[in-house]
Amino acid sequence: MLELVNSISDLKKLDVKQLPELCADIRSKLIEEVTLSGGHLASNLGIVELTVALHYVFDESDKIVWDVGHQSYVHKILTGRGENFSSLRQKNGLSGFPDCEESRYDSFNTGHAGTAISVGLGLAKSRDILGEKYRVISVVGDGSMTCGLTYEALNNVQKTKMLVVLNDNNMSISDNVGSATLNMSKLRVGKYDKNKENLKRALLKIPLLGKPAYKFLRWCKRRAKLRYVRNSYFDMFDLKYVGIIDGNEIKDLIYYLTRIKNNVDKPTVLHIVTKKGKGYLPAEKDPENYHSISASGINNNSLESSVIVGDVLCALAAEHDNVAAICAAMSKATGLDEFKNKFSDRFFDVGIAEEHAVTFAGGLAKGGAKPFVAIYSTFLQRSYDSILHDVALQCLPVTFLIDRSGFVGADGKTHQGLFDLSYLNNIPNMKIWTPSSYSELSQMIHAGMHENCPVAIRYSKTLSETVRVFEGNWNIVKSTDDICKIKVLAVGYKMLETALKAAGEFVEVVDVTTVKPLDYKYLNGVGSAKILTLEENVKSGGFGESVAAYLASCNRPNVVKVLAVEDEFVSHATIDEQISMCGMDTENVARILSEMLANC
Amino acid sequence: MLELVNSISDLKKLDVKQLPELCADIRSKLIEEVTLSGGHLASNLGIVELTVALHYVFDESDKIVWDVGHQSYVHKILTGRGENFSSLRQKNGLSGFPDCEESRYDSFNTGHAGTAISVGLGLAKSRDILGEKYRVISVVGDGSMTCGLTYEALNNVQKTKMLVVLNDNNMSISDNVGSATLNMSKLRVGKYDKNKENLKRALLKIPLLGKPAYKFLRWCKRRAKLRYVRNSYFDMFDLKYVGIIDGNEIKDLIYYLTRIKNNVDKPTVLHIVTKKGKGYLPAEKDPENYHSISASGINNNSLESSVIVGDVLCALAAEHDNVAAICAAMSKATGLDEFKNKFSDRFFDVGIAEEHAVTFAGGLAKGGAKPFVAIYSTFLQRSYDSILHDVALQCLPVTFLIDRSGFVGADGKTHQGLFDLSYLNNIPNMKIWTPSSYSELSQMIHAGMHENCPVAIRYSKTLSETVRVFEGNWNIVKSTDDICKIKVLAVGYKMLETALKAAGEFVEVVDVTTVKPLDYKYLNGVGSAKILTLEENVKSGGFGESVAAYLASCNRPNVVKVLAVEDEFVSHATIDEQISMCGMDTENVARILSEMLANC
Repeated sequence: MLELVNSISDLKKLDVKQLPELCADIRSKLIEEVTLSGGHLASNLGIVELTVALHYVFDESDKIVWDVGHQSYVHKILTGRGENFSSLRQKNGLSGFPDCEESRYDSFNTGHAGTAISVGLGLAKSRDILGEKYRVISVVGDGSMTCGLTYEALNNVQKTKMLVVLNDNNMSISDNVGSATLNMSKLRVGKYDKNKENLKRALLKIPLLGKPAYKFLRWCKRRAKLRYVRNSYFDMFDLKYVGIIDGNEIKDLIYYLTRIKNNVDKPTVLHIVTKKGKGYLPAEKDPENYHSISASGINNNSLESSVIVGDVLCALAAEHDNVAAICAAMSKATGLDEFKNKFSDRFFDVGIAEEHAVTFAGGLAKGGAKPFVAIYSTFLQRSYDSILHDVALQCLPVTFLIDRSGFVGADGKTHQGLFDLSYLNNIPNMKIWTPSSYSELSQMIHAGMHENCPVAIRYSKTLSETVRVFEGNWNIVKSTDDICKIKVLAVGYKMLETALKAAGEFVEVVDVTTVKPLDYKYLNGVGSAKILTLEENVKSGGFGESVAAYLASCNRPNVVKVLAVEDEFVSHATIDEQISMCGMDTENVARILSEMLANC
Repeated sequence: MLELVNSISDLKKLDVKQLPELCADIRSKLIEEVTLSGGHLASNLGIVELTVALHYVFDESDKIVWDVGHQSYVHKILTGRGENFSSLRQKNGLSGFPDCEESRYDSFNTGHAGTAISVGLGLAKSRDILGEKYRVISVVGDGSMTCGLTYEALNNVQKTKMLVVLNDNNMSISDNVGSATLNMSKLRVGKYDKNKENLKRALLKIPLLGKPAYKFLRWCKRRAKLRYVRNSYFDMFDLKYVGIIDGNEIKDLIYYLTRIKNNVDKPTVLHIVTKKGKGYLPAEKDPENYHSISASGINNNSLESSVIVGDVLCALAAEHDNVAAICAAMSKATGLDEFKNKFSDRFFDVGIAEEHAVTFAGGLAKGGAKPFVAIYSTFLQRSYDSILHDVALQCLPVTFLIDRSGFVGADGKTHQGLFDLSYLNNIPNMKIWTPSSYSELSQMIHAGMHENCPVAIRYSKTLSETVRVFEGNWNIVKSTDDICKIKVLAVGYKMLETALKAAGEFVEVVDVTTVKPLDYKYLNGVGSAKILTLEENVKSGGFGESVAAYLASCNRPNVVKVLAVEDEFVSHATIDEQISMCGMDTENVARILSEMLANC
């Protein structure tokens, strides 16, 4: 059936009865291709029917905003990108997220959770201002209901005509948290499915009368859901509520969406329940592990920074009663699952609520606990003001564990950890440490325990297994006998490896373990050497600029070449490809070094 | 009465009957002193009884967290700082916000809205982890209920023992917005007061039976409020609700707080209604204008940047149907009141919801509207990820109007606009313009209208009235005939004035109108000149560093001295004092310039 559907207009030609087969085909394609290419599997399996139904019912000119965006694969397949689907998340291939440059059917780029209602409201207001007529549909997971931005947006919807589809699978990436989310609907996946199935089975067993009775009951229930069901959560925001609907039942979805489409007199929320991983048993059973899988299938268990983080934090917590750990809806991904189990009283998963995670940590630290906040670099961007205003201002000893710093590979533009050095560098009282090896990472977490100020430890998913000692100053990892003419200052694992490979005989290589403060003793001793800095971060406000500015204030300033990401967003590719795309690969570094030598 | 109360223990010795007189004394002191010193008057007048009652009922070891913090004056007077109160907001005097360095009674530094429940939850969890016993009280205004951070925190309170006092005066700084806030309580100030007074008066008119009947009714009502009243908003978060209480009735407050104190078995919210500006007629009538007053009384109407912003935006909106304006609970302060009245369909006050303001603007721009977002520099810190991820990533044409950039004077540490150049500089696709004069500001807003990318225009409250022309490159405002040996690059009004005063004969002075991109043509022509940069911003990631780094990559790098705020938070004082505190006054700049000349 999928072979017949290469566009939205193909889809609209199908009969409703053909749609279940289409859904099955899409599901097979997803399982087949995503297990090869890697990507977000479980959430896309859950949302097949909803995506088909939305495109079947709504018009091509209507705008769908996909919150978080990683569940847009089915949408991509249906909007002419099915053939190219095997290029997913690869260099020059399809993005793993909606991308307006990729297709006119993508109405907004998303990646971070909680933006869809805010964006949808912007589109809808823009439509009203300009007198246009399209409909706006924001598709939001229940995880995003823990996010303050979603609340701020709901609070402003008021009378604006738009549809919010709440896709409730009872999960963020980890399990959901928070009272509001739990109270949002008392019916949850398991119970709902079971009750419905039991009733259906019982009715259909009754001879003759059973089938008509079931149909009549369904008719009543559908009417009731459209007209009379209320939900105190959405009542609060004055949204019309329709729910709860089985979001994996294509016919139900078509029924409700058609009626909502034709009667959008006020903002409406359609509350559906779907099963994350639906149709692929391993993913249904373990949706957290199948949330995002790597190209070789399920994520393997080779050493990663998160493992070190988990181990060290557990050891610290066993030793110190005041150690607490905080994450934002990603306990497993940040390495905290063991901590969560062993020290549940001191473990806090706050949901997709990065601002609260940090301000809360400020309160914990003020009260005498010792909080470690584990949030990916890209998501910690949300906490900039909380770090500055609620932690650094009072110099509170919160330690930030910032995974996925630098290039992140296949997730691409929306998820790059290329800004943290800059947004942390400008915050007073903050220390920034950058391990290149697992051993340094471990030592830094231990050291963070005893600092009396905020500390940010930023690292990539994998690090070097070389054992290095962290003593708070920079490590010269390759020295030269001669008076060194060129010094390469490299931040983090990949940049240090690159520097070591590219450096010739007369070049000194330094493992920059602390970006803030700089190692002024080292810098004061560089004499007239030329400096090359390497960092996986944007240039502005990063490590290299701070070195250049420090040395430029001397009376005989040094030549400082800053190799960093220029003023741009870096698309999906492998990490090594991204390093090359930004001119930071071994070859290019070697070329720059030889030019610098030639100009001596 | 106030003369008897120099400490919390003095307060606790008083009889409840003496408290109304104490409140009256405090109110007089506030009116007298704040109209002289300047500061936040209306909110403090409203909260006199609550503050007295909290300290009267709760223990000295209990911790009160004041959301936003500008309503902590009464708390300061009661905790031994009354004598020093005339030094409020002055250099080395009392801060206008809670400050842990100032008093052990200040349990957390606050300034930005919406942090108190998150912080309070952190303190409470820390208490539980460490086995301590104090109580935690977060005092939150209803304006902060529009803020996502408050929601994220409420969603995580769950079973943690703490008290939230919701101080409901039906205002943020401007009037409240948003459906949730409106639905939070159907009874509002005016109606509530009136009903209550009417009932009391009617009952007391009945001879003999009237007084006992009134007392019995009050007893019943108090019981009911403690036990049976529910509120769907707080039910959602599983908080026990007590309300609505008249927050300007000291006896009622004592009654309820005492009972809550002794029965804090679960998290509780006490919902009180107070009158902003209570007891001072001008402030009761116009609480928005009396929210914050300057030292000379009510804010005068001399020319300010916000006036230019309002005028130009109205002119643009009259000409272009797609112009929209957005603010976050501060329509008057940002200059948008006229726009709000004239173009109400295109004006959006989103509440204290800076994240949504920006993400929403991204949606508006994507849909074809032309949004201008007016948010103070310090509050825009909240939007860092929204600017990066929801605007800049797609290069959407949103123009940011960033008032109160640079030093802000009396508000001090929590409100300095000293980070914006840094946090905006590192965002790809962003342009940053920095007017020194009203004329440039006006031209820049017009220019922003026609840009196809995000533009940030950052300015201080007042600018120069000198007419200058903005053409997108830097202006040499003082040139020299000789080949210039030293060039001063100054960002913004005050720094440019300083540079002009301090510059001697051989010094060129440049008005840096665009921080991003830099004027590379100018920089490529500086030859071997020494450079001094001046900016009201932290050094890291700011203007000077980017100039230094650019010039350091050349083969014969220039000496570049960056004069900016070092890695520190700058306390309250006048703006000129703050400039001196950071070594950026005329004298010091002249001294640095003469040193640079001497070393030539």
